[in-house]
Amino acid sequence: MYRAPIDDIKHALFDIAGLREVMAHLPEGMLTDDLVEAILAEAGRFAGEEIAPLARAGDETGSKVENGAVTTPPGWKELYAKWREGGWNSISSPEKYGGQGLPASLAMAVLEMWNSASMAFAIGPTLTSGAVEALERHASEELKRKYIARMVSGEWMGTMNLTEPQAGSDLGALRTRAEPRGDGTYRIFGQKIFITYGEHDFTDNIIHLVLARLPDAPPGTKGISLFLVPKFLVNDDGSLGARNDVFCASLEKKMGIHGSPTCTMIYGDGKFGDEPGAIGWLVGEPNRGLNCMFTMMNAARLAVGIQGVGVAEAARQKAIAYAKERRQGRAPGAPTRDMSPIIEHPDVQRMLLSMTVLTQASRAIAYACAQAADLARWDRERSNHWQERVNLLTPLAKAFPTDMGVEVASLGIQVHGGMGFIEETGAAVLLRDARIAPIYEGTNGIQAIDLVIRKLGLSGGDHVRRFLAELQADAEQARNTGDDDLAIAGIRAREALHDAAEAGEYLLGQLTDGRQEVALAGATPFLRLMALAVGGALLVRGATRSGDAARAQLARYFAENHLGDTGALRRVVLEGGDSLLRAAGLLAAM
Amino acid sequence: MYRAPIDDIKHALFDIAGLREVMAHLPEGMLTDDLVEAILAEAGRFAGEEIAPLARAGDETGSKVENGAVTTPPGWKELYAKWREGGWNSISSPEKYGGQGLPASLAMAVLEMWNSASMAFAIGPTLTSGAVEALERHASEELKRKYIARMVSGEWMGTMNLTEPQAGSDLGALRTRAEPRGDGTYRIFGQKIFITYGEHDFTDNIIHLVLARLPDAPPGTKGISLFLVPKFLVNDDGSLGARNDVFCASLEKKMGIHGSPTCTMIYGDGKFGDEPGAIGWLVGEPNRGLNCMFTMMNAARLAVGIQGVGVAEAARQKAIAYAKERRQGRAPGAPTRDMSPIIEHPDVQRMLLSMTVLTQASRAIAYACAQAADLARWDRERSNHWQERVNLLTPLAKAFPTDMGVEVASLGIQVHGGMGFIEETGAAVLLRDARIAPIYEGTNGIQAIDLVIRKLGLSGGDHVRRFLAELQADAEQARNTGDDDLAIAGIRAREALHDAAEAGEYLLGQLTDGRQEVALAGATPFLRLMALAVGGALLVRGATRSGDAARAQLARYFAENHLGDTGALRRVVLEGGDSLLRAAGLLAAM
Repeated sequence: MYRAPIDDIKHALFDIAGLREVMAHLPEGMLTDDLVEAILAEAGRFAGEEIAPLARAGDETGSKVENGAVTTPPGWKELYAKWREGGWNSISSPEKYGGQGLPASLAMAVLEMWNSASMAFAIGPTLTSGAVEALERHASEELKRKYIARMVSGEWMGTMNLTEPQAGSDLGALRTRAEPRGDGTYRIFGQKIFITYGEHDFTDNIIHLVLARLPDAPPGTKGISLFLVPKFLVNDDGSLGARNDVFCASLEKKMGIHGSPTCTMIYGDGKFGDEPGAIGWLVGEPNRGLNCMFTMMNAARLAVGIQGVGVAEAARQKAIAYAKERRQGRAPGAPTRDMSPIIEHPDVQRMLLSMTVLTQASRAIAYACAQAADLARWDRERSNHWQERVNLLTPLAKAFPTDMGVEVASLGIQVHGGMGFIEETGAAVLLRDARIAPIYEGTNGIQAIDLVIRKLGLSGGDHVRRFLAELQADAEQARNTGDDDLAIAGIRAREALHDAAEAGEYLLGQLTDGRQEVALAGATPFLRLMALAVGGALLVRGATRSGDAARAQLARYFAENHLGDTGALRRVVLEGGDSLLRAAGLLAAM
Repeated sequence: MYRAPIDDIKHALFDIAGLREVMAHLPEGMLTDDLVEAILAEAGRFAGEEIAPLARAGDETGSKVENGAVTTPPGWKELYAKWREGGWNSISSPEKYGGQGLPASLAMAVLEMWNSASMAFAIGPTLTSGAVEALERHASEELKRKYIARMVSGEWMGTMNLTEPQAGSDLGALRTRAEPRGDGTYRIFGQKIFITYGEHDFTDNIIHLVLARLPDAPPGTKGISLFLVPKFLVNDDGSLGARNDVFCASLEKKMGIHGSPTCTMIYGDGKFGDEPGAIGWLVGEPNRGLNCMFTMMNAARLAVGIQGVGVAEAARQKAIAYAKERRQGRAPGAPTRDMSPIIEHPDVQRMLLSMTVLTQASRAIAYACAQAADLARWDRERSNHWQERVNLLTPLAKAFPTDMGVEVASLGIQVHGGMGFIEETGAAVLLRDARIAPIYEGTNGIQAIDLVIRKLGLSGGDHVRRFLAELQADAEQARNTGDDDLAIAGIRAREALHDAAEAGEYLLGQLTDGRQEVALAGATPFLRLMALAVGGALLVRGATRSGDAARAQLARYFAENHLGDTGALRRVVLEGGDSLLRAAGLLAAM
């Protein structure tokens, strides 16, 4: 059973990401050490005691649809009510609307716990947060007044309707139409797919944010507008009015996150209301819908990255617990003829330690990204600097932890041996759940392209250079502590950061020279290289700052057993692109 | 839909593994080029047209049990009958018992196809082959006469009953008992788990091979005997007699291979027969059961490795087909404003090319192992040499292809984007199926330990040295062709082989110096290092021998984009072990 890793989380928040720096910029008394402690403890309790026990029902029963009505898994509706009553939905929402306005760092730490307990449950509220953020930044005062407070309280949930069958990664291809009714509202027509919690029984109303095209919109991404489309229209007194013309036509049968209803939503089919067309309200400027989305995309991507951290943490806890109990074979040096717990076998230890450090490196990157987002908001003088940091870290924080979620969950299965393949054990579901995270909210390939094409060049390349130099300083400091483990970890981190710098300069050079395809070919290995170097350096920083010998040993384990990959990845970036582009010519005939 | 990659398979058989060398040692006329061609073509047809269409029903419906009777998925019983009528069950079985006696190389090529079409279907007959081999080598003439021919024809299927709840990787812990009845037969009592095709409706009788302990047996692995236990007793005239006291108590709910019934088998519960105890016959010497198993273990491990190859091939074909059709975004240099097929995006090309070369390298290693097994049998003068080669290659051929099966299937999901997570697409099931292969038939960790502890030291370490030197000669030859792609691939293969040699010598030294735990700690990275180096060199060899420019490009792609990992892995082996063993001390408190 999941037990929130409070120590590791606090270490990542304070020693690695620097939450104290955020706290120094917050209004006096807004966040105290005691409050951090209390929030983490209570969230940990709720995740472990309330959510985790219902995760299996979520996987086994899943969400079901009948006549457009979705029934969530047994106990989930009550769980959501309890969770919302605990105030968890509003933790980082604006105080103006009844939220607690706490830093993203803390919200992400808590979100990690929900995801460890049940990724399928946790993703629903995540989407509500995203919708609240979009409305807060772009909606009219009237819409804000009518909707935000009730979404902040969790009375209503929100959704994001982007994808259509022909428009996945490429939203420019979307076709959903919005026709003006002449009274400032619109009628929406179209089909949206893969809509997470598009329909459910948690709340009385569901507030859909929908991307659609106005009649005169230019083609492509510059002709997309954002609309608010409630499931039930809302009267001026706040009571629910007529059912809007939108419904859930079906649920996807997915590999994992079975509890989360993934809906095909039909807008404007004439199923409800007097005339066809779901009534919607424009959010933000016409044809600027994608920009509205972009403002919240960093947060959404980070939230998905956190899913990777959460699943990885759950998998490592489960594997360690099993390895302590399960006895097979005799470990080297074991005294008796009895079988040893498999945790004593070096090869199993390798798996468990790798699961641990890959989880911790993922958490370090994700929390560092959240901290930068907090500073972008609260450190007004250096807001631009921190916003660049968020922009740089977001693709790393989305892609690496989600890849590691898959990797660590897969290792978790392996530790369980044959039992890992049996669903009842509960190890397999973690891989099945984790496997979506590298895909949605921008595939990890798209994250890599974003990193190379848009982020490497921030401040003319200087932002990345300065960031790597900061981390080099951490590595240097570790070397100078006189502690062997830290010194070796610091030396290896320095090498890795050099690899990252060299590969980054190479890619920047390719872009400058107009060889975009070579840069694109190197994007995925470069992202992994950057993430390993950054993750390794952050573990070194944390171990140095905490003065904790155990953390120094883990940082060294990571350095000696994972960080060496950066040399290979540097060569792939520098030397592999050409052979990729040439060999790609063979694919057409395959 | 799956199309057997006949060209790639022939290339791997002839240009890489050297089937012609095997053919030169076979009895005149036993295997001609035309026959190879005909077998591959017909097997390819059968796999693609007959098996593959029933794979989805296998996953969705799965096998069911009711009152001890197992119903296989819709159409599977008929499929098995058709497959057996096609003579496929007997392809490599001894001619003495009605088999075709063909080389293992060819049998493995064909087995790859069955596994690409449906791993869950293919695994059943694989177990029968194993049981036939065990009986042929160790059973009395009477048992052979009564059982083998009907198992070779496929009229009856065979099973392997090893695992018990407390005895998985460690068979020394098994408790199933065999009590002599005084007439040369035994009564078997115990519970076996994870028994693949332990019960089904394909055949009238099922011949179980069961590991159990005699009353006076010493503890541990030296007190285990092997028994033949038929589901129905067989009368002297060959007709079926009474039902034996063994039944299937339940099926496991697994992550994948749903079509394959994974049974808990109960022996001697008194459910059938006059008195409790399933009647069994001793196979081989008392207390030598594990040795009987060992003689067939290489073949079984290779067969599981082939599952990895098969699933990987299926995944790459599926992903390439999807990437040709699916249009999203605009590829660099694409002429119009239309969306490009995603196969034109460099990052997708990277995934597809990696899927391709990882599949090919896996196939190369697996087929090379099969070829060595054939030469161990037919090249009488160098039989010992070839048997050592089989012993060395088996852990590589089991672990690397099965790890790559998981990796390639996971990449296949990624290529499909959101659709990859939807079960209907058929990409997810490949990962779910593939995930068992690194576990069963000796986990990949156990393969790595086997490689380091038992195989590195073959002929005092000289076998591995000579093997790596042979591959160095291939790399050298590639460099001297004057072809750029081959030259670069050859240079990188040389580096990788050096890494393998250095790491191998280091581990041998650790063993010599009594630091077994350091060797164990390095086992898994060493296996990966060896497999990459060997796989890369074999691709180079194949490309050189075939003179095919496309294969040279792929060998270079592999060399420049995957082979660089060997440098990192060498460092992990040489430098990572100590930090692993120290950090392992932290696990107890986690």
